[in-house]
Amino acid sequence: MPHIKQVAITGGTHGNELTGVHLLKHWRSDPAQVARSSFTTELHLTNPRANGLNRRYIDQDLNRQFSLDDLNNTALLGYEHQQAKALNALLGPKEDPRVDFVIDLHTTTANMGTSLIFNSEDPLVVGMAFYVQQQLPHAKLFMDPGERLSDTFLTSVGRYNGFLVEVGPVPQGLLRADVYNETQVVVMHCLDYLDAFNRGTLPNLAGQREGFCFVEKVVLPENEQGELTAMVHPDLQDRDYQPIAPGDPFFMTLAGDTLAYTGSKVVYGAFINEAAYYDAHVGLSLMDKIQIELKSEPTAD
Amino acid sequence: MPHIKQVAITGGTHGNELTGVHLLKHWRSDPAQVARSSFTTELHLTNPRANGLNRRYIDQDLNRQFSLDDLNNTALLGYEHQQAKALNALLGPKEDPRVDFVIDLHTTTANMGTSLIFNSEDPLVVGMAFYVQQQLPHAKLFMDPGERLSDTFLTSVGRYNGFLVEVGPVPQGLLRADVYNETQVVVMHCLDYLDAFNRGTLPNLAGQREGFCFVEKVVLPENEQGELTAMVHPDLQDRDYQPIAPGDPFFMTLAGDTLAYTGSKVVYGAFINEAAYYDAHVGLSLMDKIQIELKSEPTAD
Repeated sequence: MPHIKQVAITGGTHGNELTGVHLLKHWRSDPAQVARSSFTTELHLTNPRANGLNRRYIDQDLNRQFSLDDLNNTALLGYEHQQAKALNALLGPKEDPRVDFVIDLHTTTANMGTSLIFNSEDPLVVGMAFYVQQQLPHAKLFMDPGERLSDTFLTSVGRYNGFLVEVGPVPQGLLRADVYNETQVVVMHCLDYLDAFNRGTLPNLAGQREGFCFVEKVVLPENEQGELTAMVHPDLQDRDYQPIAPGDPFFMTLAGDTLAYTGSKVVYGAFINEAAYYDAHVGLSLMDKIQIELKSEPTAD
Repeated sequence: MPHIKQVAITGGTHGNELTGVHLLKHWRSDPAQVARSSFTTELHLTNPRANGLNRRYIDQDLNRQFSLDDLNNTALLGYEHQQAKALNALLGPKEDPRVDFVIDLHTTTANMGTSLIFNSEDPLVVGMAFYVQQQLPHAKLFMDPGERLSDTFLTSVGRYNGFLVEVGPVPQGLLRADVYNETQVVVMHCLDYLDAFNRGTLPNLAGQREGFCFVEKVVLPENEQGELTAMVHPDLQDRDYQPIAPGDPFFMTLAGDTLAYTGSKVVYGAFINEAAYYDAHVGLSLMDKIQIELKSEPTAD
């Protein structure tokens, strides 16, 4: 694998997730923290207009607009459609990117702790997740592999389909110091990893680690008028990454009745009661627990 | 005191506080829950437009628009200015209200548990707080007495300056079942209290109970550009209603440095890191611990 020369740290991709926005401000005033001598680090606030209004987005979720087809579709004229094209020009272009690796900072209202989200089986990317989890054993690995060019995340604009750091729980529109500190620690480990990779000084990494793979989103019950009739059950609330078995309490109706999980096998919850998904009435994601393999040791040429 | 004939339960006064909005939907489908034979209960979603957009407000905070001067000021033309006038026509008018008692349902992102907020020393109002706390000893009493006609809260439109039920922590824009259930329990006690008052069957209430009285709001540190340079300190986060002594950790700068509380006496925090106050960069409210007196037993004529 070639050396990593250019790393971008991005925040405010969702404008009301303030942690990344303020870490960028901090690092701009103290660039030494994100500098590593073997590569250049750049910092980008990616949805300043939504951030200025303290909203997730203006017209559409920016972090779903980066498939190559959509980037090339001149009929898509929403604010975030345009912003994705601008970011592709700044960081990419996707077919032959200038930036090697994008680390995008997010938060969630769900009790997901520190989640490392990546959509690539590339050893450089998987190796970063394994390295960070080796330093921070409480971090969870959240993998949904796919093709980089069709991937819709901002991170897919880099040469490697990089890394989304997702920390919670924190409400939208505010800063929690614990979440701010934790996000900063994770990013330091990510940068140290890329630096060690470039220098050939990576420690031994496990060949396999436990992780979670996205299965499906689950919509909350609605009535015929499309109004919510139930919410996440109190026994499921805050139990991200815990098993959900057939028959377990799943939803609670507005009248207080329990609705059970009707699936046929054990799954695991994530993004349980994420506020950002209420516009689509999504209550949680279901995940499979998987073993993630590091197919070869990441080594620069 | 005269009998209570007409009680209004209101929700969605802040459009992204979903708990009250959905309790209203539930009670509309099951009116027996909020019915008491000695008075009539009516249910009102008070800021439907902000709720439809999942925002606290459209133009200005609705729950600051109910002073008599503002209600009579025809130059105030914002959406919530107009909505306040419409609600005053529906529930009031403030000088001679149709509705006797307004119970307004709110949530907070702060770790305030169950807070009973009222701005009146009237024995009927204070008695409700004492009664609810007798049933739910974890509930906190939050009092800021003033004149009903100049009070800016929606609850001041009723004949008695009623009661704001504030439960948290819950992020904006979502439902937590625990907060939903707790809010419902509090409202049931409020209605039972008014019913017992009308019937002359109130239990003995304490003459005095501990509570908290608003002192001032504290703004987070800013730079010359008006940008936040610090956040609530991790040792203060989630410690609502706990003492803050001179020298205690208060804020943490973006660089991680601790700023101490510089006041001269012990105070108590509330609304610590409330997302709704970030537009004004307010980090928390300071409170005094006080003894609240029930000046006479509430008794109907």
